[in-house]
Amino acid sequence: MTCYYRGMAVDFDISVVLTLLFVVVLASRLFAIGFEFLKLPQVVGEIIAGIVIGNTLLFDLLQVEANFGFLELLAELGVIFLLFAVGLETRFSDLSKVGRTAIYVAVLGVIVPFASGYLLMVSLDNPPSEAMFIGAALVATSVGITARVIRDMRLSDTVESRVIIGAAVIDDILGLVVLAIVSGAASGGGLNIIDIVLVAGMAAFFVLTVILISTKVLPVAIKPQPADAIVCSLEKRHSRVSPLMLAVIVCFGLSALASVFGLAAIIGAFLAGMVFAEYKERWPCEQSFEAINEFMSPFFFVFVGIQVSLSVFADIDLLLFAVAITVVAMLTKFLACGLGARSLGRRSATIVGIGMSPRGEVGIIVASIGLSVGILNDSLFAVVVFMSIATTLIAPPLLQRAFRRAMPTTEEIPPSPGSD
Amino acid sequence: MTCYYRGMAVDFDISVVLTLLFVVVLASRLFAIGFEFLKLPQVVGEIIAGIVIGNTLLFDLLQVEANFGFLELLAELGVIFLLFAVGLETRFSDLSKVGRTAIYVAVLGVIVPFASGYLLMVSLDNPPSEAMFIGAALVATSVGITARVIRDMRLSDTVESRVIIGAAVIDDILGLVVLAIVSGAASGGGLNIIDIVLVAGMAAFFVLTVILISTKVLPVAIKPQPADAIVCSLEKRHSRVSPLMLAVIVCFGLSALASVFGLAAIIGAFLAGMVFAEYKERWPCEQSFEAINEFMSPFFFVFVGIQVSLSVFADIDLLLFAVAITVVAMLTKFLACGLGARSLGRRSATIVGIGMSPRGEVGIIVASIGLSVGILNDSLFAVVVFMSIATTLIAPPLLQRAFRRAMPTTEEIPPSPGSD
Repeated sequence: MTCYYRGMAVDFDISVVLTLLFVVVLASRLFAIGFEFLKLPQVVGEIIAGIVIGNTLLFDLLQVEANFGFLELLAELGVIFLLFAVGLETRFSDLSKVGRTAIYVAVLGVIVPFASGYLLMVSLDNPPSEAMFIGAALVATSVGITARVIRDMRLSDTVESRVIIGAAVIDDILGLVVLAIVSGAASGGGLNIIDIVLVAGMAAFFVLTVILISTKVLPVAIKPQPADAIVCSLEKRHSRVSPLMLAVIVCFGLSALASVFGLAAIIGAFLAGMVFAEYKERWPCEQSFEAINEFMSPFFFVFVGIQVSLSVFADIDLLLFAVAITVVAMLTKFLACGLGARSLGRRSATIVGIGMSPRGEVGIIVASIGLSVGILNDSLFAVVVFMSIATTLIAPPLLQRAFRRAMPTTEEIPPSPGSD
Repeated sequence: MTCYYRGMAVDFDISVVLTLLFVVVLASRLFAIGFEFLKLPQVVGEIIAGIVIGNTLLFDLLQVEANFGFLELLAELGVIFLLFAVGLETRFSDLSKVGRTAIYVAVLGVIVPFASGYLLMVSLDNPPSEAMFIGAALVATSVGITARVIRDMRLSDTVESRVIIGAAVIDDILGLVVLAIVSGAASGGGLNIIDIVLVAGMAAFFVLTVILISTKVLPVAIKPQPADAIVCSLEKRHSRVSPLMLAVIVCFGLSALASVFGLAAIIGAFLAGMVFAEYKERWPCEQSFEAINEFMSPFFFVFVGIQVSLSVFADIDLLLFAVAITVVAMLTKFLACGLGARSLGRRSATIVGIGMSPRGEVGIIVASIGLSVGILNDSLFAVVVFMSIATTLIAPPLLQRAFRRAMPTTEEIPPSPGSD
C-alpha cells in the first residue's frame, strides 16, 4: 500500500514486509533448534538461516532487496538490545578489575592482525592502500556474536567474559583510529595527526564521561532524590511508567550519543546497560528486556547471514584466497589476544583468544567503506565478507567447547536467568 | 553510514535514526505521564507527542521525513502486537456469545456514517465520487485506539469490549467492501459486482477459516501430539525455544496472511492472539508479550500524531468544515453503533458507541487512497486527517468516563495483569 503523507509517498507493501518478517523469524527458530540439537551454537544456525534466505529463491520472493533497510533497522535494534542486556550483567567494578588485561588484549588484538593483513597483502603485490583496508578489516571484533554465545551459556559472570567485553570496548575505539588512519591515507590526504587524535579523543571522552557520571555522579544524585521519588510514586499508581521504558530511553539515548561520537551504537547500549546494572534492584527490567531481546536479536544474526552472497565464490582462486585470509584472521586474533590474556592462565587465555575472533558485521562495515571510497574492488570486498562470516561461524562452536572444557559444570546451569 | 550490499547502497544514518527513536520514546513517555497525571488517557498523550514532533523544529532536526518508512514499520509492528495482546485476552467462545450484537453494531456503524457523509458532501455540491470517498473514510474504525484504552483500564474481560472487538473485525471486512465499491466507481469502471463479492468473500473466508481451524482442528491436533512433545522437551532443555517465539511466529504468519487477503494486518494479529489464548496455560507468553508491547505500541500512537500537519488549518473555512465533518463522524458512529448495541442496556450501548468512533490510521489510509487515485484534493485529504485524529483524541477520554460510570470499581483494579 502506498501511504501519502503531506504529498510525499512512502512505498511500503505491508503484506510483503510481514511475510518477510515471518520467514525470518520462523527460519531463525528452525535453524537454531536444529543446531542446538546438533550441540552447535544456536547463533550459527540463525546466521545460516540468513545465508539460506539470501542465496535462494526466497531472496527474490520475499523482496529482500527492496526491504533491506527495514531488516537493517531491526538488526541494529536487535544487537543494541543484546549489548544492553550484556551491560546489565556487568558492573563497572567488575570490569575495572580486569581493566589491565582487557587493555593488553585489545591493543595486541589490533596491532597483530593489522600488521599481518597488511604484510600479507603487500607481499602478494597488492597496492599499500588496499593492503591497509584489508588490515583494518582484520582488526574489527564483533562482540555481538561472542556476547550471544556467552549469554546462551549463562556465563556472563566469568572473568573471561568481562575481559572480552572490556577489550571489545577498547578495541572499538582503537578500530576507529585505525579506520581514520586508513581512510585518511586512502583519500590521499596522508596521515592527519590532528584528525586522528580528535577521533580517538572524542570516542574515549564519551566512554570515560559515561563511566564517570555513572560511578561518581549518579550514585550521589539518585539516592535521597526527588526525581526518583516521582518515578516511584507514579510507578505504584500506574503500570505504564515502568523500569523497562526508563531502560529503553537510556539505552536509545546513549546508543545515539555513541554513534554521534563516532563509536558503534552498541558501545553506547552496553554502557547504558552497565549504568542500569547499578540500579537493577530498584528498577528491575532484566526479565522484560529478556523478552524484547528474544524477539529482536535473531534479526541481527539472520541479517549477518543475508549479507553473504555465495555466488561470488564460484571463482576457486578467490575462494582459496578468502580461506587464506580467514586463517590469518583467526590465528592472529587468537594468538595476539590469547597472549594479552596469558596472565589468566592457558585455558582462560584460549577462551579470550577465541572470543575476540569473530569479525561479524564490523568487518563488513570496514570493507563497505573501502568499497565506497573506491579502494577495494568487488572481489576483495567479497573476500572480506567471507572472512567476516567464516570467523563468525567458526568461533562460536570453538568458544562453546573451550568454555565447557574450562567449566565442566556449564551444562548443569538452569536455563532461566531467574534474576528478577 | 552507507552500507554497501552487493553493489546496492542503502542510506541509513544510524545516529540520526537512534536519536529519532530516543526522542519518540522519551516524548511518548513524558506526555503519557503528563496526561495520566491530568486523569486523561495516556494514549492521547502519546498522540500529542507525535503531533509535537511532527509540527515543530523537531521534524526537520530529526529528519522525520527521511526516516518515515522506519517509523511506519515500527508503528505497524506496534499495533500488530497490541492487537495480538487483545486477542490473547479473548476466547472464541466469549466472542461468539456477543456475535449477533457485534454484527448489528458493525453493519449499522458502516451504513449510517457512510450515508451521512455521502449525503452531506453531495448536499454541499461536491461531486459524487468525492462524496463517496468521504463517506468511506467515515466508515473506518481504528480498533487500536479503543483496544489500548481498554487494556490500560484492564477491562478486556467485559461484554462491551468483546462487542467492540468483534464488531471491529466485521467492520474491517465491510470497510473493504465499501472501499472496493468506492474505488471501482472512482476508477470509472463502475460497480463490478463480481470483484466486490470476491473481495468480501476472500476476507470472510480467511477469518472463518482461522476460526474454524483453531476451534475445530487445533484442539484435536494439539493434544496427545508429537509436535508439541518435541517443543516441550526442547523447551525444558533450552530456554530459546520459547512460547514467546512460537507466538511471534504465529502472529507474523497470520498478520501477513490477513494482509494478503486484503484485510488489515491487525485483524490477523488479533486472530493469532485468539488462537493462542486457547493455549496460554500450556505456552504462557502474556508477560513476555506485555514487555514487547510496552516498548513497541507507543510507536504506533506517536506515528498517528506525526501524520498530522497543523499548518493546513490556518485556513479557517477549511478548519470549520473539518470540525463539521468530525461532528458528523462522531455522532453517526456513536448513534448507529449505540443503536446496534441497545440490547446491552443504555450504559453499555454508550460505551460501544464511543468505542467504535475513533477513526485513527484507518481513516487516513482511506483518504490516502482517495488522494492517490486523484479523487480527493489536498484540502479534503487534510479534512479527513483532521477528522481521523480528532475522533481519535476525543473518544478515549469519553470512553474512560463512560467505563468509569458503568463500572465504578475500575480504579481499584490492581495495575498488574498478573496472568502468568
